[in-house]
Amino acid sequence: MTFHSLDELRAACRELPAGDDAAAAAVASRQDTLTKPQGSLGRLEEIAAWLARWQRCAMPKLDRVKVFVFAGNHGVTAQGVSAFPSEVTVQMVANFSSGGAAINQLARIAGADLAVIPLDLDHPTGDFTQAPAMDTQAFLAAVSAGYEAVSGDLDLICLGEMGIGNTTPAAAISAALFGGDVRQWTGRGTGVDDAGLNRKVAAIEAGLKRHATALADPLAVAAALGGRELAAILGATLAARHRNIPVLLDGFVCSAAVAPLGRLHPTGLSHAIAAHVSAEAGHRHLLEALSLPPLLDLGMRLGEASGACLAVNLVRSALECHQRMASFAEAGVSEK
Amino acid sequence: MTFHSLDELRAACRELPAGDDAAAAAVASRQDTLTKPQGSLGRLEEIAAWLARWQRCAMPKLDRVKVFVFAGNHGVTAQGVSAFPSEVTVQMVANFSSGGAAINQLARIAGADLAVIPLDLDHPTGDFTQAPAMDTQAFLAAVSAGYEAVSGDLDLICLGEMGIGNTTPAAAISAALFGGDVRQWTGRGTGVDDAGLNRKVAAIEAGLKRHATALADPLAVAAALGGRELAAILGATLAARHRNIPVLLDGFVCSAAVAPLGRLHPTGLSHAIAAHVSAEAGHRHLLEALSLPPLLDLGMRLGEASGACLAVNLVRSALECHQRMASFAEAGVSEK
Repeated sequence: MTFHSLDELRAACRELPAGDDAAAAAVASRQDTLTKPQGSLGRLEEIAAWLARWQRCAMPKLDRVKVFVFAGNHGVTAQGVSAFPSEVTVQMVANFSSGGAAINQLARIAGADLAVIPLDLDHPTGDFTQAPAMDTQAFLAAVSAGYEAVSGDLDLICLGEMGIGNTTPAAAISAALFGGDVRQWTGRGTGVDDAGLNRKVAAIEAGLKRHATALADPLAVAAALGGRELAAILGATLAARHRNIPVLLDGFVCSAAVAPLGRLHPTGLSHAIAAHVSAEAGHRHLLEALSLPPLLDLGMRLGEASGACLAVNLVRSALECHQRMASFAEAGVSEK
Repeated sequence: MTFHSLDELRAACRELPAGDDAAAAAVASRQDTLTKPQGSLGRLEEIAAWLARWQRCAMPKLDRVKVFVFAGNHGVTAQGVSAFPSEVTVQMVANFSSGGAAINQLARIAGADLAVIPLDLDHPTGDFTQAPAMDTQAFLAAVSAGYEAVSGDLDLICLGEMGIGNTTPAAAISAALFGGDVRQWTGRGTGVDDAGLNRKVAAIEAGLKRHATALADPLAVAAALGGRELAAILGATLAARHRNIPVLLDGFVCSAAVAPLGRLHPTGLSHAIAAHVSAEAGHRHLLEALSLPPLLDLGMRLGEASGACLAVNLVRSALECHQRMASFAEAGVSEK
């Protein structure tokens, strides 16, 4: 689907299919017959029901798991907000292609296919301290690219990103949507020093001031302060909802990317699980604001969908227990 | 190894091999050359170094991962401390054999072999409110069984247990070793009601009073208040240390089982990681007392090594990233 206007995209974000309550209830009901104390698999039991609810199927599958890493470049790096130079984005995309990055190893362990989608890396977004990051057309193109990437035959997707400088737009979007002191949303990203951190805060404050009239509209926020890879993640998450595909979200940038959908619809992110909470300042706060309790908390701050991918085997474990455990009756085990 | 006296076992617990600092340092050094911001894989980087330290090898392996589930029965169930009848222990052992339990599914996803080791299920331990759970001979036999089970050709082991009533000895051991109000160590196990919880607390208080003279010696505590499967886990953990095998510990019962080793040697549990913190009251507190920060926190409370097994793919992911990621130089990626 290609979106032609913000209004069209907004409407798509506001008219979302609900989950399949019956499928989720069937899973919960079966869980209680399996050879374990009721509820003793904790979040694994919730995950099995969540898969059923959003795949709309009482016996969900995980045959086709795919990881999407969207990549973009950012004009705001001109403000000295990143520890690494912008050329690293395209260099890392090459590293993904040759199999040398963390996500290549993690996707293999997860039994997931990996798609890396670079978005116009030769043309960084505008420096949001000076101009909108993207005009409406560029924003809709990136959202549409993300939307189109997600084919309907997938059982679960992991979303992540690569983009030097992109914790700055992520913090800017978070501050724009949820308010509060900019410093609470702003962290060291790939490792800026104190001076770099101060430059990030200053850039975000300048961006919020320059685009003050856009702040009431979550999609306008995403266009003015975001980035192409963030917009693509938003589009992919929307597509997943329309195509009955549960989503594992990665870290801070990924969570900020989908926050507009959470603001536009009260259950806009219910088909998504926050796979982990990262070490980047602001992520824990953002997940609380989005009511997304993370599965993992391992001090990671890499991006690339690395945290999302790590959680795939937890989801597989949840499903295997649900599908293949014996019931008390089948196993001849006494109940309470 | 068969232990013939408490003194012999105590000596084995006090003369432990140290980790290989050079191997761990080699891993840390290599991590910093790989294509990611330094430290950005968080605990995965620590895990890779931990594997190297305790396998004593700068390039550790995970070819042979094995899950051990030790099973035992408990005389203290006569005090009405469990929601399930004692016959469930042997019924669940049969369920493990036929592949119908949670651990069967989880071991398969983890790529791990599963060994289930029942320990004299027809002869429950003594009711510790009335007598020691085990005499010295029975305790040493169970420790030795656990020790002997761990062959030297393994790369990583997961330890867990099955034993109706065994959160009661686990809480009793915790209270004996670390003090404090018995209620803070005592939870609902497989799901006792308030009356059952009060019976557990009363039983533990009675046990602590009856065996007051044993409380100064961690091994005497494990014999008087523990159980065969707990003793076997202690033996297996000791064997792993002697045989250069890192250990993933499961939940509350497993942590209480190894606590005596942590009390007998300041680094007695350094070759072990707490795979998860369970929902059972007391586990979080016990892990803090043991200085073992958990990897996962998923509200699980099943036992069977289920939490330990879930963590195996995190460890695999850590190792694959360490071994197979490209360096900045190899990938042609610019550094800071």
